[in-house]
Amino acid sequence: MNLWFTERETPSVALSAEVERVLDHHQTAFQDLSVLQTKPWGKLLILDGAVMVTDLDEMGYHEMIAHVPLLSHPHPEKVLVIGGGDGGTVREVVKHAQVREVVLCELDPDVVAASRTYFPQLSSGLDDPRVRIVHEDGAAFVRAQAGAFDVILVDSTDPVGPGKVLFEASFYASVKEALKADGMVVAQSESPWYTPEIVTGLVAAMRTVFPKVGLYTSQVPTYPGGLWTFTIGSLGPDPRQCDRRRAAQLEHLRYYTPALHEAAFVLPNFVQELVQKAGGNL
Amino acid sequence: MNLWFTERETPSVALSAEVERVLDHHQTAFQDLSVLQTKPWGKLLILDGAVMVTDLDEMGYHEMIAHVPLLSHPHPEKVLVIGGGDGGTVREVVKHAQVREVVLCELDPDVVAASRTYFPQLSSGLDDPRVRIVHEDGAAFVRAQAGAFDVILVDSTDPVGPGKVLFEASFYASVKEALKADGMVVAQSESPWYTPEIVTGLVAAMRTVFPKVGLYTSQVPTYPGGLWTFTIGSLGPDPRQCDRRRAAQLEHLRYYTPALHEAAFVLPNFVQELVQKAGGNL
Repeated sequence: MNLWFTERETPSVALSAEVERVLDHHQTAFQDLSVLQTKPWGKLLILDGAVMVTDLDEMGYHEMIAHVPLLSHPHPEKVLVIGGGDGGTVREVVKHAQVREVVLCELDPDVVAASRTYFPQLSSGLDDPRVRIVHEDGAAFVRAQAGAFDVILVDSTDPVGPGKVLFEASFYASVKEALKADGMVVAQSESPWYTPEIVTGLVAAMRTVFPKVGLYTSQVPTYPGGLWTFTIGSLGPDPRQCDRRRAAQLEHLRYYTPALHEAAFVLPNFVQELVQKAGGNL
Repeated sequence: MNLWFTERETPSVALSAEVERVLDHHQTAFQDLSVLQTKPWGKLLILDGAVMVTDLDEMGYHEMIAHVPLLSHPHPEKVLVIGGGDGGTVREVVKHAQVREVVLCELDPDVVAASRTYFPQLSSGLDDPRVRIVHEDGAAFVRAQAGAFDVILVDSTDPVGPGKVLFEASFYASVKEALKADGMVVAQSESPWYTPEIVTGLVAAMRTVFPKVGLYTSQVPTYPGGLWTFTIGSLGPDPRQCDRRRAAQLEHLRYYTPALHEAAFVLPNFVQELVQKAGGNL
C-alpha cells in the first residue's frame, strides 16, 4: 500500500522508511509508542515520533554504549542502566562475567513489554538472574543511591519530554554520588552535525563534577546524521583503555572490537574542537 | 512554500531536506543537474537525483579522499582526479606543496561550470596553475596514460550511468598501468550498511591488480547511511601511515587529522569481515 514512516530529524531534515506492517501503536502513560515492520531496517521501535531502535543498526549503539565503559573499568560488578527499556544495553552488559548485578531503571513499563513482544533478540538479556527492573524516574532513582554503582549508563531518549533532565548538570551531580570512588558514567549525546549544542552541553554538564570527560562515536544510520556520540565521565579509569583479555571473552560482537574502542575516541577535527571548547579533556 | 527535496537513498529509504530556492535545474549532455539552496545543508548539488555535495559536510568527503593517499604516498607529485568536477577534491590536493601537476578528468563540463557559479569555496582550487581540466571519459583517459601518476583519485558518482565502469576490475587494471611503480589509487565505495555489495565488489576488483587493498571511512550525513567508505589500493606505500610533518603544513582542515587518518582504517566488526572476505589485506 506504499506506506511510509517519516521522522523529522531536525525541523528541516526528514528520514523515511517504507513500512510493511504496523505491529503496535498506542499511547502509554508517558509517550506515544509504535512498532513497525519496515522494509529497509527490519523491526522499528518509535517513541514520540523518534526512531529508538531498529534491527539493522541497534548493535552500533548498544555494543558501544556498554563495552567501552565496561572494558575500561577494572571491575564492573554493579551496573545501572537508566532508560534503555528495550533491553539492548542490558543484553550487552550481561555478556560480562564480572557483572554481578544490573539495575534497569526504565520509567515506562510499556517499552519493556513491547520489546519482549516484538524484539526477542533485544530483550533476551532481561531474564538474566543478575538483572532487576525498576519502573521509576531515573533522576529520582539515582538521587536515592549512594556509592552503589561501578558504571552508570544513561540510555535516554532525546532531551525533550521525560528525557530532558538527563542532560542537566544537577543530574550528573547525583550520578557522581551514586558511583563508587572509581566509577564511570556514559550518556548518549546525539549528533555533532545537527545538534552540536547537545554535545557541548553534555560535555560541560559532566565536567562540572567529573575530572575526566571525553567523547566517542558510533555509527547509527537510522539516527539523525548517522554519526552518534557518547559522552563519558570517569572518576578514575581512562575510558580509552580496553582490557583486551576480557574483551576476547565476549561473544557475538557485530560492531565492537578492541581496536575500534580506542579509535572511537579519535574525532573529526570540528568535533574535537567542540569537545575541547566545552571542557572535554581526554 | 514548504518545498522539499527528497532522495530515494535505497528503494525503501528516503532522505529529505527543506528547500529555500531552486538555483539551477537543467539537463546536461550527460545527466540531470540541480543546485538548491536548502535550509539544513546550505547549497546542495544534485546529479540524476542523488546528493553530490552540500556545504554542510563536503569536507568530510573531500579532505578524506585526498589527504589519506597524499600523506601516505612519499612523493605525490602528479595526481589524477577522475570525476570530481565540483572541484572539492582538487581544492584539497593543491594544498600539498609537493604536488606539481593535477589533472581533473571530468566528463561533464556543466558540473564544473555549476560549481564555479554556485560553490566558490568548492571550486577555489580549479584556477591553481598546477591544475589542468580535461572533459573526457575517465576510463578512456586512463587507458591512454602509462606510468604517469603517483596518485589517482576516483571521485565518482554512484555505480549507475556514466559512473558504472569506474567500479569494474578492468578499469583498475588500466589504473595500475597509469600509475608509477609505487602508485596509489583511492575510490569512493558507498555505504557498508545499505550497499555492502558495492564495498566488497570494489575491494575485490582492486585486489585483482593491487597487492595492498584496504578500506577506510568518513562521515557524510547527507549520503545514504552517513558512514561513507573509500577503497584504497597501493603498489607500495602503506596507506595507513601518515607523514605527520607534511600534515602539519596543511591549512584549513575542518575534518582530517593525522590521528583520524590512522583511526579511519579501524572498522566496525561487520565491515572488517566484509572487507576480509573480499580479499582486503590491510
